[in-house]
Amino acid sequence: MNEILKLVLKEVKPTPADRKRLERVAAELIGQTNAACAKLNIDAKAMLVGSAARDTWLRSERDIDIFILFPEELPREELERQGLAVAREVAGAKGREQFAEHPYVTTRFKGFDVDLVPCYDVAKPSEIKSAVDRSPHHQRYITEYLTSELADEVLLTKQFMLGVGCYGSELKVQGFSGYLCELLVLHYGSFEKLVEGASGWKPSTVIDPERSYPDPSEAKRMFEKQPLIVIDPVDASRNVGAAVSMQNFATFVRACQDFARGPSERFFFPKPARRLSARQIQATLKHRGTALFCVTFSPPDVVPDVLYPQLRKAERTLVTRLARAGFEVMRSDVWSNSRALILLELAVAKLPRVRAHVGPPVSIEVKDFIQTHLKSKQKLAGPFTNAAGRLVFELKREQPNAGEVLEQALKERATLGKHVGEAIAKEYQIYTGKDIVQLCGDEKVRAFISEYLTRCLPWYR
Amino acid sequence: MNEILKLVLKEVKPTPADRKRLERVAAELIGQTNAACAKLNIDAKAMLVGSAARDTWLRSERDIDIFILFPEELPREELERQGLAVAREVAGAKGREQFAEHPYVTTRFKGFDVDLVPCYDVAKPSEIKSAVDRSPHHQRYITEYLTSELADEVLLTKQFMLGVGCYGSELKVQGFSGYLCELLVLHYGSFEKLVEGASGWKPSTVIDPERSYPDPSEAKRMFEKQPLIVIDPVDASRNVGAAVSMQNFATFVRACQDFARGPSERFFFPKPARRLSARQIQATLKHRGTALFCVTFSPPDVVPDVLYPQLRKAERTLVTRLARAGFEVMRSDVWSNSRALILLELAVAKLPRVRAHVGPPVSIEVKDFIQTHLKSKQKLAGPFTNAAGRLVFELKREQPNAGEVLEQALKERATLGKHVGEAIAKEYQIYTGKDIVQLCGDEKVRAFISEYLTRCLPWYR
Repeated sequence: MNEILKLVLKEVKPTPADRKRLERVAAELIGQTNAACAKLNIDAKAMLVGSAARDTWLRSERDIDIFILFPEELPREELERQGLAVAREVAGAKGREQFAEHPYVTTRFKGFDVDLVPCYDVAKPSEIKSAVDRSPHHQRYITEYLTSELADEVLLTKQFMLGVGCYGSELKVQGFSGYLCELLVLHYGSFEKLVEGASGWKPSTVIDPERSYPDPSEAKRMFEKQPLIVIDPVDASRNVGAAVSMQNFATFVRACQDFARGPSERFFFPKPARRLSARQIQATLKHRGTALFCVTFSPPDVVPDVLYPQLRKAERTLVTRLARAGFEVMRSDVWSNSRALILLELAVAKLPRVRAHVGPPVSIEVKDFIQTHLKSKQKLAGPFTNAAGRLVFELKREQPNAGEVLEQALKERATLGKHVGEAIAKEYQIYTGKDIVQLCGDEKVRAFISEYLTRCLPWYR
Repeated sequence: MNEILKLVLKEVKPTPADRKRLERVAAELIGQTNAACAKLNIDAKAMLVGSAARDTWLRSERDIDIFILFPEELPREELERQGLAVAREVAGAKGREQFAEHPYVTTRFKGFDVDLVPCYDVAKPSEIKSAVDRSPHHQRYITEYLTSELADEVLLTKQFMLGVGCYGSELKVQGFSGYLCELLVLHYGSFEKLVEGASGWKPSTVIDPERSYPDPSEAKRMFEKQPLIVIDPVDASRNVGAAVSMQNFATFVRACQDFARGPSERFFFPKPARRLSARQIQATLKHRGTALFCVTFSPPDVVPDVLYPQLRKAERTLVTRLARAGFEVMRSDVWSNSRALILLELAVAKLPRVRAHVGPPVSIEVKDFIQTHLKSKQKLAGPFTNAAGRLVFELKREQPNAGEVLEQALKERATLGKHVGEAIAKEYQIYTGKDIVQLCGDEKVRAFISEYLTRCLPWYR
């Protein structure tokens, strides 16, 4: 185990030269930001936060987060106006404004991806005005407790998360943030102990570093239905694990169980997913024998944190509609790049016209049940009693073709998420079965479809 | 209501002339049987039992049951030998031996269907040696309590049962015997009160005329899973309603509820089921859009009470095998005349090759689950985690074609019932979809398929 971890650390830990370079660029950005404040006569100061500020960045990561701290009294609109002015001054023409809960600017600077984020300099984290105001407090908390030995353990943890496919709290991923990895290492004391501990996690696991909740069941109630509950040490009202989906929670726990049984570098550096040729995709689809539907449309121009929840909402709506119409959806997925895709894989695309409508047991009154269906145009047979003693009508299924259920559902824009609904209202296409290979001219689509068809936890590839 | 019942009674009650004729024929048979005993020097005496002996026969019924009572001490083999000798002497060449639990002879005599049944003349019904020994006791019990007014109520009850399709305790029907109808009328006091009472029946209803069980829950335990429990007044260990299937129980209860709401002659004399032409059958099948399979074979030469339980066993086996292979069986039925038929109607006849095999939740160890499937030749994808946090393997379905599942299942003779299994081993055919009309040259098959496709409780026709 130790050998493996050493080798991994050697791979992922920035060299002194890497570090020097990042420090130089960060100092330069801090300087430029403070200079911009002075130049624009704005009362604010720059602060380096995030992994770059804590020596917990992976060599493969090239992110620098600069926060611009404003006094608490400043009105919100002023903060946004002045914050963006400073950020634009620093980023210049190549900066791009982003709108999440809060506007900020992203840019490239000397090979790094830089975020310039205006926020309030709030004394008490419990009194923050927006989520980003917590970051300076996170920065101070981690800096206080994280030794350089623990920083190495954080690197191992992050690379493990990356390898097993759970790294990142953005809504596209729904996984573990860097800050979450840091808190977990602080809590367990090392990567190895974290693996051991997480092997026994069950949904609704509570980790509360500052014992903000004397009774863990209170925390469970507060963050109901969230599989991983890690109380933010700087703000007890926040679950740092809120982004972690049940799927990623389970993936991480299974990865820890498997790693504890058989440690290997392949958890940190898995083989890439197999890339199938168009012909292989066609053959695989034929072999599966399912009915694949792929809804494609031009993705709306919103950030991934807005797009992906809407794609999943649309996916959920379509799956529900198909299921309610009687179709078995075996698997589904969403994806977006130059095109947005909603993939729906059904057991069969066509159901019989007849469906059995089963009434209540014999002890329950059925007058209304009978009256409703007896004269119905949908009736094909019945009422008769079945072997369980229930009344049965055989009725016409409204729509026996999955394709038409789908077309119908795609007309109901309001159920598909705001921007995705608008995009689909403008234009969409449905590819069925092997026609999907027509989309595979786009290398990235082919990679997505390949991964879908050969899906497997990364360390089992 | 009264008008209706009067009209029905007028239809179904034998006229004085009918009655005189039956009495004459029955007396003649009793005389012949006793004469046969004397001639063969056999110590036994004839007794008229059943509805003919109690004035509870419907005009449409033409059955005479003659029991030949032997002394209790006679060994079983002697009873069978002597009993059959007497019965053969009475019936002559046209008599036919039948084997149920016990051998007996059936014959036609002056327009009546006659059963000649040897049995023991047992003093205490609790000490009977075979089920038929109870009949003389039933005869005595009913004769003691049934007035001629009540006999009319029995006629109404029997005709109602006949009309709604629940009359007869033979295993082909699994309904209400004549004796059961008599006990129900004695218990409730009239047909109308029976209808009222039965409208509120729930499964496990207990009726115990002689209060043999001080605690009804004891009777429920004793006759567990039998929907209707009517304790035999002459033998508390027997449920007179044992033959009543849940389906017929529910049919009768629904009929009573509907009749109480809207009395009508159509409960007693329903329209016959619609007879479809071969072309209509073809069109109906196409419209339903299901995958119909019809297994046909030459019925084994056994009485219906032996054949039907085996046909249903074979049906259940095939349904279970199809369901286990992933197919949805929407409805099924059996039938026999010159051919035996097992009908199986599936939602689809072909499933995808892939099937999802879902593992336990994250808190359960999965090492074995993973090891079993990881190297399996059946694996198409996986393991991966799903939205519920469970591990999933996508495996090859063993048999995606329902027809082949069926062929395979039909090879396992032992699971199909003794005689039916042997008959199928000799020869069978499977008709699929509209090919079934090839069987409809046989009028009776066409009637069965027509009834199946237009199935409806008789009083809703």
